[in-house]
Amino acid sequence: MRIAVLGAGAMGSLYAGYLSRCNDVVLVGNRQETVDRINADGIRIHEQDGSVTVGRPQAVVSTQGLAPAELIVVFVKSMSTGSALEGCAPLIDAHTCILTLQNGSGHEDVLSRFVPLERVLIGTTQHNSAVLGPGEIRHGGSGLTHIGCVQGDAARFQPVADAFTASGLQAGCSNEVRRLVWNKLFTNASLSVLTGVLQVPMGFITQNASAWTLCETLVREAVAVAAADGYSFDADEKVAEVRRVSENGPNGITSICADLGKGRLTEVDTISGSVVRASRRLGVPAPTHEAMVALVHAMEGKAQGN
Amino acid sequence: MRIAVLGAGAMGSLYAGYLSRCNDVVLVGNRQETVDRINADGIRIHEQDGSVTVGRPQAVVSTQGLAPAELIVVFVKSMSTGSALEGCAPLIDAHTCILTLQNGSGHEDVLSRFVPLERVLIGTTQHNSAVLGPGEIRHGGSGLTHIGCVQGDAARFQPVADAFTASGLQAGCSNEVRRLVWNKLFTNASLSVLTGVLQVPMGFITQNASAWTLCETLVREAVAVAAADGYSFDADEKVAEVRRVSENGPNGITSICADLGKGRLTEVDTISGSVVRASRRLGVPAPTHEAMVALVHAMEGKAQGN
Repeated sequence: MRIAVLGAGAMGSLYAGYLSRCNDVVLVGNRQETVDRINADGIRIHEQDGSVTVGRPQAVVSTQGLAPAELIVVFVKSMSTGSALEGCAPLIDAHTCILTLQNGSGHEDVLSRFVPLERVLIGTTQHNSAVLGPGEIRHGGSGLTHIGCVQGDAARFQPVADAFTASGLQAGCSNEVRRLVWNKLFTNASLSVLTGVLQVPMGFITQNASAWTLCETLVREAVAVAAADGYSFDADEKVAEVRRVSENGPNGITSICADLGKGRLTEVDTISGSVVRASRRLGVPAPTHEAMVALVHAMEGKAQGN
Repeated sequence: MRIAVLGAGAMGSLYAGYLSRCNDVVLVGNRQETVDRINADGIRIHEQDGSVTVGRPQAVVSTQGLAPAELIVVFVKSMSTGSALEGCAPLIDAHTCILTLQNGSGHEDVLSRFVPLERVLIGTTQHNSAVLGPGEIRHGGSGLTHIGCVQGDAARFQPVADAFTASGLQAGCSNEVRRLVWNKLFTNASLSVLTGVLQVPMGFITQNASAWTLCETLVREAVAVAAADGYSFDADEKVAEVRRVSENGPNGITSICADLGKGRLTEVDTISGSVVRASRRLGVPAPTHEAMVALVHAMEGKAQGN
């Protein structure tokens, strides 16, 4: 399968590296240094067992002159999705599907500006990965890749899932992917966002009683919005899950925390912001998420002087 | 009148300095250096017109052996009110009144542990003051001191107001003092608390669209709670007032911002916290204030390592 991966960060490099084992893969990055290194040495993936595997996609900064892809996998930061896809016109033809494996939700609104909604795929990943240097990543954890879609039956994308699985990324199709997206949001829109606002590692949120009260409020508000969206979850169970994430990774620094700490823009609009949009659409209040979105944007503005 | 002023910070020193012109005043501080300096040189008050006036209260760290006071004026940080009054037993007899001129609301709950509710006075001040050094302050702005009470008619405290006015602190009695307390809260529980959470000067809150949206939400939630408490305010008017405070003092650093910046505990429980308590008592939601209280306490905990 001809696959383009957008975004040469930790996750994009991981997927491009693995997928290149059995597919014709092009990785689109935005830093010449990283792209050059990957074309010279491949993507060096440090596995949890200490081994290092090397993936060899073609890496590019510009897609000019490239042949269309059957699948584009989007791993750029959510606020860059539109501009990244605008630079990928040569990769898109009348058959190209676009799959987002980005955090948060609502990405289909952007993807559907580039291909019809029936070729928009949304998925979730349980892998995680960190950048060690140009073309070099640490594969921190593995799990399933769930692939679903916005219109019709997800089963028709089984060939995509098979291509992933054949490359070592165990994947399946699911018509419940929106449920899985909600399920990831509970943690990201509570624990992760709070670590950003407070500029603390993940463990702080359960270690501090006030932070935990607020985190729990965020989970429960999101669960109520999800229920109105047709996805019912047990709030106590979700609260307990989020607690475990904090307790099991006390020193973990979330990407929203790192982004705010470095004065960068964050993905808050597709995390807390997507809870807020669903809340408004469905008439279920999410005032604490509204406050978090505003605080994160104010912190971004502070870092950037406006 | 024999008056004790609790707290030798900027406002306590200002009031003790002025009141000592026409009254027998003891100022209770907690730093020996400040107390010694005041007993040696008086309180040096730098006025806005450039002049320097000197007040000469008796300054003490311990109240042991002191005669009772007719009036105790409380200016300590709200979280220290209880412990400060516990150290003042010799000053309190069967006639002593206690007046709080502290920020926020709900102080009467603490004061009434030391004198009956009919001798608890609550007031507001429009003065402001900043510490320049031990025994030395800048009198940044003047205005009225409103004196009210929790039980009965405030008019019976006219002698207190007269003693203030005679000393140069224009004061009056008011049965509307709870209304005035709400009126101050709108600014403190929105603009001030947000400057603390974001660690920014006052001007930022109107300069940044997201911060301002959140600030406006806080004002409107508080106005709704006040209405349920029997005090009706025009929300648009209050929002406009808060905007003006930010715009007129863009470089102003609020005390809650300074406290959090220096890793100190804040007065948030008698500011946002008092809105939250009223909200729960009256059944009017104030979720954004709840979030602010939790965030500020989490920030305090972060600074102090818990």
